[in-house]
Amino acid sequence: MASIDVMRDPTKSGKAIRAQLRETIPRDIALETDFKEGTKYTITEHVTTLLDELCKNPRTLAVFTSLVKHLHAFARETELSHDEWRLAIEMLTRAGKESTDFKNEFILLSDTLGLSVLLDEVAHPHPDGATESCEEGPFFTVDAPELPSGTSLVKDGTLGEALYFESTVKNLQGEPIKGAKLEIWQADGDGLYDVQYPDRQEANNRARIVATDDGVAIFHGVMPTAYPIPSDGPVGDMLRATGRHPHRASHLHFHITAPGYDTLTTALYPDFSPFLGTDPVFATRKSLICPMGLSTDPAEWAKLGLQEGDVRTGRVHIWKYGFVLASNEEVAALKAKKK
Amino acid sequence: MASIDVMRDPTKSGKAIRAQLRETIPRDIALETDFKEGTKYTITEHVTTLLDELCKNPRTLAVFTSLVKHLHAFARETELSHDEWRLAIEMLTRAGKESTDFKNEFILLSDTLGLSVLLDEVAHPHPDGATESCEEGPFFTVDAPELPSGTSLVKDGTLGEALYFESTVKNLQGEPIKGAKLEIWQADGDGLYDVQYPDRQEANNRARIVATDDGVAIFHGVMPTAYPIPSDGPVGDMLRATGRHPHRASHLHFHITAPGYDTLTTALYPDFSPFLGTDPVFATRKSLICPMGLSTDPAEWAKLGLQEGDVRTGRVHIWKYGFVLASNEEVAALKAKKK
Repeated sequence: MASIDVMRDPTKSGKAIRAQLRETIPRDIALETDFKEGTKYTITEHVTTLLDELCKNPRTLAVFTSLVKHLHAFARETELSHDEWRLAIEMLTRAGKESTDFKNEFILLSDTLGLSVLLDEVAHPHPDGATESCEEGPFFTVDAPELPSGTSLVKDGTLGEALYFESTVKNLQGEPIKGAKLEIWQADGDGLYDVQYPDRQEANNRARIVATDDGVAIFHGVMPTAYPIPSDGPVGDMLRATGRHPHRASHLHFHITAPGYDTLTTALYPDFSPFLGTDPVFATRKSLICPMGLSTDPAEWAKLGLQEGDVRTGRVHIWKYGFVLASNEEVAALKAKKK
Repeated sequence: MASIDVMRDPTKSGKAIRAQLRETIPRDIALETDFKEGTKYTITEHVTTLLDELCKNPRTLAVFTSLVKHLHAFARETELSHDEWRLAIEMLTRAGKESTDFKNEFILLSDTLGLSVLLDEVAHPHPDGATESCEEGPFFTVDAPELPSGTSLVKDGTLGEALYFESTVKNLQGEPIKGAKLEIWQADGDGLYDVQYPDRQEANNRARIVATDDGVAIFHGVMPTAYPIPSDGPVGDMLRATGRHPHRASHLHFHITAPGYDTLTTALYPDFSPFLGTDPVFATRKSLICPMGLSTDPAEWAKLGLQEGDVRTGRVHIWKYGFVLASNEEVAALKAKKK
């Protein structure tokens, strides 16, 4: 199944290259035993024997040895047919060709097969009791304004129902964390981020809220709605072939930082959102799904700091959450323990 | 790690799509239990639970369930870092972008990780005693002429040392097979196939030799030399990173057909070729590596049917092999036994 070599180094004849390699490459490395399926020495051992002999970088050797073992185990378990293999080659080739600066199909594939979540969990263990994390996603920008607690994130003309969000940022000992900052970015009421509007002038539905000294961080905004991950490429085909859909549940994204504490990247979900149990990228953990309040009383809106002009649909969603950060020392101790 | 959705169906609002899906997709499928690394219910069980619930095609379900399990096992075993993951995403994206009609990097990746050989072995078991098979590769064409045993494959001007090839085609009972045809295609003495010359007018170094009734198939030609698989893309980078080289050992390709017999696709290698033990695509099996003869005696050349004009370097390589084909019934019986 190899392909045609159309490129040759014109400064060297094939003969000269071969003569040079004949000197440097040992000849019989992988020919001592014949490989055969169903014996103790299969193609898998044959490939890993060759890697053992030739690969000098221990990490590269470990990664490719593991890759070959698991890839072969997959092919054996499924008895993958040549037609299925050809379809996979076509899908992977399309995935590369159709990837752009704004959409990478291999990242989407990693997300939709649960690999991205797994790598995050393996790389970032967090102590029991600390808020769970999830992936940052592609919509974070660095231009969000820094605002005091209690401010609105919303520019004129933003679509969506009014939202009041109130949180505390505490440590594992239950103490408020001084100097905590809550960076939020979110979709609007039509499921779109500001960067998806071609006429974007400045940050909208984004801010870095500075918590009060007692760890309270409040903002006003709009209720985000669900939106789909891109499904116009081979990953979309894969989702359809497996009966899945591309729609992420509604959510708010957060980076939460504080001096001496491990930065938390996470997202929160309202419990009434559709798609919570069928998230295409597996980022909806139970502890991040929030019971929601609703206020239709203008007197209460005023107490929450909202003006009637902010509430165009006659109701305000009330969302409360208590974030818990682990200290750098607590995370380091956990990592040391896992080794 | 998901990417930005820049495509939306303009005929449907996000709200309409969401309302429709809310009706049809059950809400809490994968939210009954929270997944957590190090417990019995990890992201792997979470993804496969969702697939179990949603995927209606049993074969698609089996393939993706197995893929997720083995991909996750690989990531856990290697504790793959985010930087390594990003490098892999870049390499795979390049692999798609750099693939052409003449070179597919994913096919090369499959070949160089031993997957192509494995799929061939799993799909095409063959009885003990029958000649072993290997992949066809990308150089087969359908325009080879049909010639009687004893003919030359070589056009004027072909590079390479003279070759006399003599074979028998027999069945597992040791009887010559009537009506056998031996289709050969091969590189020349500079490691190039006819299709790699831009001025190719007609087939060269290719033929379908009709064996005699006693199963003898002879041809004259040139000795092929080693040539590299393409190494200008990410697969070349992978070979270099693992200390490997792209050079295939010298070989002749064959399709061997006969009425009532399982078609054999294979290749043979001279035992003096470099790279036999480090073949980048793992196609050099011991039983296909042949001891070679050499004749410097013009009187012997004449007996073999060669004229002095055919022998420009003063010697003729003498290559003999006995092919053994399994009958269709023998292969069917073996497949039935494996199930």
